Amino acid sequence: MALKLGLVGIGKIARDQHIPAIAADPRFELVATASRNASVDGVAAFTSVEALLAAVPELDAISICTPPQAHFQAALAALRAGKHVMLEKPPAATTREIALLQEEAARHGRTLFQTWHSRFAPAVSAARDWVHKSTLTGGAIRWKEDVHKWHPGQQWLWDAGGLGVFDPGINALSILTEVLSAEACVHKAALDFPENQQAPVAARLDLRTEAGVSIDADFDFRHKGEEAWDIELFSTTARARLSRGGSALEIDGRLVVDRPAMEGEYPGLYARFAELCAAGRSEVDWRPFQLVADAFLIGERRTVAAHQV
Amino acid sequence: MALKLGLVGIGKIARDQHIPAIAADPRFELVATASRNASVDGVAAFTSVEALLAAVPELDAISICTPPQAHFQAALAALRAGKHVMLEKPPAATTREIALLQEEAARHGRTLFQTWHSRFAPAVSAARDWVHKSTLTGGAIRWKEDVHKWHPGQQWLWDAGGLGVFDPGINALSILTEVLSAEACVHKAALDFPENQQAPVAARLDLRTEAGVSIDADFDFRHKGEEAWDIELFSTTARARLSRGGSALEIDGRLVVDRPAMEGEYPGLYARFAELCAAGRSEVDWRPFQLVADAFLIGERRTVAAHQV
Repeated sequence: MALKLGLVGIGKIARDQHIPAIAADPRFELVATASRNASVDGVAAFTSVEALLAAVPELDAISICTPPQAHFQAALAALRAGKHVMLEKPPAATTREIALLQEEAARHGRTLFQTWHSRFAPAVSAARDWVHKSTLTGGAIRWKEDVHKWHPGQQWLWDAGGLGVFDPGINALSILTEVLSAEACVHKAALDFPENQQAPVAARLDLRTEAGVSIDADFDFRHKGEEAWDIELFSTTARARLSRGGSALEIDGRLVVDRPAMEGEYPGLYARFAELCAAGRSEVDWRPFQLVADAFLIGERRTVAAHQV
Repeated sequence: MALKLGLVGIGKIARDQHIPAIAADPRFELVATASRNASVDGVAAFTSVEALLAAVPELDAISICTPPQAHFQAALAALRAGKHVMLEKPPAATTREIALLQEEAARHGRTLFQTWHSRFAPAVSAARDWVHKSTLTGGAIRWKEDVHKWHPGQQWLWDAGGLGVFDPGINALSILTEVLSAEACVHKAALDFPENQQAPVAARLDLRTEAGVSIDADFDFRHKGEEAWDIELFSTTARARLSRGGSALEIDGRLVVDRPAMEGEYPGLYARFAELCAAGRSEVDWRPFQLVADAFLIGERRTVAAHQV
């Protein structure tokens, strides 16, 4: 029998990705939504997660895709009402909130699936296999896009806690932590804050693995034209290039995976969520978010030109 | 038989606290030090932890009190050489580094004691007992000191990753997380950065517990005169005031603990370290450090007047 699902936060990512993925998966039935001012045709609509939980007690699960500042309260309410919870990235406002949600899910015996959609991109598992049989010597991440194209009018990205360029950049870090066989830390960082905003428009990180391998990351929201969502990794014998957000993989210039960008990411997330609910397990990995918090913690802050949202 | 100890980082905190505490504890014998340009009379001196580990293979344990930017490499080298490790606060440069050290200690079967000295202040356990039998309704932390008195010339505090006012402030957070019976998160924060420095000179935090109780924290390095190291907690029936960094406790104005500031803190740390080494256990609690990283992550940044170190 399908899991009765409530979707919380009806914005761009809900319409572009969540709703089509839910509609295509027979293991889920979308029975209600919560959003301050949006709804989905033919689906019961509420203006808060609390109202939704009170009105539709037969719900099995909630999927949350509001801005991250609202994740914690929504997830806490849903877990306390005995629902399974799936969280869009970035997972919450702070790293401590994730720890608390993890404990809360365990306390109620419910599934918490804290997602990283880019890990489900079509070439990521092939890149992981390559890394695990290689000896890495270095790497470079270029994650650059035009914020006006991808995040038009999204002021929450620029408010305190909004992450700025780390909102896409954390996708790169979620892929990196998935494919590496060693753990990485932020060794140095530099963050560029527009003089009129509270979140960085660009950032450069020097990541280091336990083995001392250096991976540079260059995140930029001021990019024009074709977006660059690339991770290059160098081993003692070859070079791997994961491009278009994890949808293509080249090894020494030979294309080994080449699929449309984002193909299968959200269907893959919902398939995993269904499996986790059935198995009574949670899946939480806050390492990408910790790397971002660490970059804010030790990063050199620079003030750059004003940015108009 | 006494544990043969190496002390890494011979600065103000080593001379003021570590060396006297080690000298007074028969379970430790200080056999060597590592410091770029300082030594201790009558103790073998090396200029790096690597040189110390190579030259004194009979060492059992290392205590690290360098600036936090150097903790990770020193601790990693010591754990890999099979030594127990005690880490001064703040524990490392980043939160991920602590996770990695924790894994490394487990891998080598060695003790990692990641210390919070203020938790060993004389009134902390009485405050904890009071909190655990109370229903909290709120709290306020005032942690203010004159940085020129307490940290003269310490430029590392002001460099990227140096924590600024959170270097003392994290002591308050270490006490708070020790005494509370519920978990706390950073709900909002505001950080004041001097225009010529990379770390905040003052910060205000709005902490919230899972139960929704609000605890305000006010950290300031620009304070003049008598330092304020106070935590007030309000319950449904009484008020507790932990003052002088955890050395005094008043309940509803009645003094229940009143000891000299810092009394027993470092002797308590070394006693715990000896117990942990004997038991083959580690003790790591990165929640205070995560709260600081979260404050940097979501805090509103303000630029204030230049600060001369």
